Amino acid sequence: MEKLSAWWERLIASSSILRFVDNVPRGVGQVMFQDNPLSGAVFLAAIGWGSYAAGVPQVSIAGLVAVIVATLTAEWLHADRAALNSGLYGYNAYLVGLALATFLAPGPLLWAYVVLGAAVSVVVMLGTANAVQPWGVSALTFPFVLTTWILLLATYGFSGLTGTALPVGRVVTPFQPYEASPLNIADLAQGVLHSISQVFLKGNGIAAVLLLAGLAVNSLAAAAFALGGAILAVATAHVLGAESELITGGLLGFSPVLTAIALGTMFYRPSWRVALYAALGTVFSVIAQSALNVALTPFAIPALTAPFVLVSWLFLLPRQCFQKTSAVNVDGEKLAA
Amino acid sequence: MEKLSAWWERLIASSSILRFVDNVPRGVGQVMFQDNPLSGAVFLAAIGWGSYAAGVPQVSIAGLVAVIVATLTAEWLHADRAALNSGLYGYNAYLVGLALATFLAPGPLLWAYVVLGAAVSVVVMLGTANAVQPWGVSALTFPFVLTTWILLLATYGFSGLTGTALPVGRVVTPFQPYEASPLNIADLAQGVLHSISQVFLKGNGIAAVLLLAGLAVNSLAAAAFALGGAILAVATAHVLGAESELITGGLLGFSPVLTAIALGTMFYRPSWRVALYAALGTVFSVIAQSALNVALTPFAIPALTAPFVLVSWLFLLPRQCFQKTSAVNVDGEKLAA
Amino acid sequence: MEKLSAWWERLIASSSILRFVDNVPRGVGQVMFQDNPLSGAVFLAAIGWGSYAAGVPQVSIAGLVAVIVATLTAEWLHADRAALNSGLYGYNAYLVGLALATFLAPGPLLWAYVVLGAAVSVVVMLGTANAVQPWGVSALTFPFVLTTWILLLATYGFSGLTGTALPVGRVVTPFQPYEASPLNIADLAQGVLHSISQVFLKGNGIAAVLLLAGLAVNSLAAAAFALGGAILAVATAHVLGAESELITGGLLGFSPVLTAIALGTMFYRPSWRVALYAALGTVFSVIAQSALNVALTPFAIPALTAPFVLVSWLFLLPRQCFQKTSAVNVDGEKLAA
Repeated sequence: MEKLSAWWERLIASSSILRFVDNVPRGVGQVMFQDNPLSGAVFLAAIGWGSYAAGVPQVSIAGLVAVIVATLTAEWLHADRAALNSGLYGYNAYLVGLALATFLAPGPLLWAYVVLGAAVSVVVMLGTANAVQPWGVSALTFPFVLTTWILLLATYGFSGLTGTALPVGRVVTPFQPYEASPLNIADLAQGVLHSISQVFLKGNGIAAVLLLAGLAVNSLAAAAFALGGAILAVATAHVLGAESELITGGLLGFSPVLTAIALGTMFYRPSWRVALYAALGTVFSVIAQSALNVALTPFAIPALTAPFVLVSWLFLLPRQCFQKTSAVNVDGEKLAA
Repeated sequence: MEKLSAWWERLIASSSILRFVDNVPRGVGQVMFQDNPLSGAVFLAAIGWGSYAAGVPQVSIAGLVAVIVATLTAEWLHADRAALNSGLYGYNAYLVGLALATFLAPGPLLWAYVVLGAAVSVVVMLGTANAVQPWGVSALTFPFVLTTWILLLATYGFSGLTGTALPVGRVVTPFQPYEASPLNIADLAQGVLHSISQVFLKGNGIAAVLLLAGLAVNSLAAAAFALGGAILAVATAHVLGAESELITGGLLGFSPVLTAIALGTMFYRPSWRVALYAALGTVFSVIAQSALNVALTPFAIPALTAPFVLVSWLFLLPRQCFQKTSAVNVDGEKLAA
Repeated sequence: MEKLSAWWERLIASSSILRFVDNVPRGVGQVMFQDNPLSGAVFLAAIGWGSYAAGVPQVSIAGLVAVIVATLTAEWLHADRAALNSGLYGYNAYLVGLALATFLAPGPLLWAYVVLGAAVSVVVMLGTANAVQPWGVSALTFPFVLTTWILLLATYGFSGLTGTALPVGRVVTPFQPYEASPLNIADLAQGVLHSISQVFLKGNGIAAVLLLAGLAVNSLAAAAFALGGAILAVATAHVLGAESELITGGLLGFSPVLTAIALGTMFYRPSWRVALYAALGTVFSVIAQSALNVALTPFAIPALTAPFVLVSWLFLLPRQCFQKTSAVNVDGEKLAA
């Protein structure tokens, strides 16, 4: 594996086309923090399968188009070369592409929207990285969330773009507990797997297993925290009495999964104290997901991974409390103090 | 008084248990910026009485549980010792505990929520203090507001937690002036007192008098600005034609009271110019309170002290315009430039 | 022209009253980034005509009152003299005055509101300038937007102030395409002109021509980018299928006009690459305008120039990608790195 990786590194250093071919899957891999083209390729396969199985192959294609447009935009903007080669300008665009094609009806304007959104996501990524730099935190998926929210909200004012899968707008009302629909172990297990695949906006068990494999290729710890985070999230949501469909669909678990990977493996040097801290953040991410779902009901747009961004920033800001890893941010600077 | 204070300081320096006993009321005192355990103890008595008189003793207990959990959490996180000993990790948690027990129905999950919210409030306090440090301002009650908003919003998605005292969600509609209900002097006086006690989410005249006494123990200026701020707030709300019940209940005055203490006594060196500036901030806090009440109607959650935080940050940011006091922030750094 | 300008500079240096007389139109000129009293005087005439023609002369008077109050407030707060003399404490107040008198019914409390809003806008300007300083960006019209939003939202809780021209609050609902109302060239041309005059909240073709003239007096490039931005905005809105009345009224174009001037002429050294970047920002401003219109429907307040502020900040933050001009910010510091 190491040999293969070294050979590949030598190869892409020799060709700008191969470098470009390498940048695309790395961008996909960075959605789950993995700077590894093989992880990204497995993720691409997982989402390709998930889209195909759900009868919406254009979703996967829109993601791919977006990450290619974003890589070209980053080059045009003279973005930091090391960050570009690590896929840091691609992951937000990939998610923008998936989200737009998931929530909006197909058509020529959708593809114009995907291209525009991908290009803007790079600007927002560059801006966010600069904005959060004083605090030594990473941009996470904030550029994806902000860009997609603006693009989706705007469609309510345009007849050229129709939101076919957007939530219905309403004011916040008290939760109506329904007739008992007790979840059994199989339901909960499905919720765990879908919590992992919903990071890429897909509820698909096979995709989830592929995603775990893609994580394990680069980092066993990341795979373990992803799975552990998903289990903890589903258990928390169940104890608090969340809606069954949200639990089994993984819709309360994808943000906590990302929080668990970020806090547990990426930015803090692993320890039992860090694992406990990550668990607290993971549980709070479930609550933040529910809160943002509620807060966005009047606006008729989805929360995306905003709960992950919010909770991870809150839990990464007190950086004096833990030892940082040597993870570097988008400017090529060490995140560690 | 000075002797007593010196004796107490020596005593708590000798025992970690007594230190802990000291930290808890200091946390309560810091809700109104008083780093004084006696002030905090009087505040605790005031809120204890207010809760008992309103038939909800669990509110006061939840506050106490929260401040204890927060103090333990801050120790576990190796938070700055000087800040911890000044109660700076306790005041947000105390308010989180009061708010959760005020707005949600009692039950085992409420107490789990209180413990979780108290622990998270410490993380948010550490994070906010780091986040606002470049501007030399204090975290104020932002951690309380953010943590509580997330926890309250999330309950609309959980059947295990019920908001019994939360506002009803609706879109913003024009104000309906009712039949004349002219306020007399006694009504306005009640509004003034309740504006002070509502800082701790209680509408209770005796509690208000106790709170003023607790302020006066440590700072006569703070007591004077609290009372003056409450009077100015009630007068402003009345002139602008606010709803009578909001005025008499003190619900438009508690944020202005905090703004008046903060701008008038805490962060700027007192002067007539500062007093006039604080008055402008106090009047604008009434307007900001009304604005946030309106802005939050679709979300069915209360504004809490967000208007105080917003206006005080806006009025503290232009720090070059006034001389700063030597107030120190949570990192033990001088806030003065 | 140069001689006239030099003579005027000598004249105002000799008299604090003439200096004050100079500060007021400069404040108006800064709404469109022009530090030139003649531009400001032409803008004042344009808006005076627009108000008079629309039968609301009090709107123009409220703007003038606000900019005078703001200038006095800035002096009382000992604000930076160079920034004050460039009109940087006046432009937000001018817009606050126009907006309050546009959206609220006349009456004594309206004028109290205008005076209060103008004074607070200076505090918010000082605070915002300090807040954004670490990123080397400018405050833009954020102080106007924030102050006006708070003041307008609050009126829904006050019987003394009535919003006669505020939008109706409702939850977000899918866009209803109406019967075909195809826009002809004359409609689109009107949309372009109104996009320029709506920067000052007026839909008036003559005012728009005067505004372009006022821009050209100081900067031909600014006039060209204003016109080009308006054309691009109207074309974008039309292609995306926006509501005809919003297009012809200039209500989707005023934020893009400001974005085009800011990105194209103010902060980056002009080049084809910058022009293309400004075009991307202009197109995205149309989408952000639609998005914020939608996001604010539950709150029943207008988006004002928030889309311009949001998009311009996002596009100005990646400052490493382009060469900066020597534009200075409110603290008299060079914005260039």
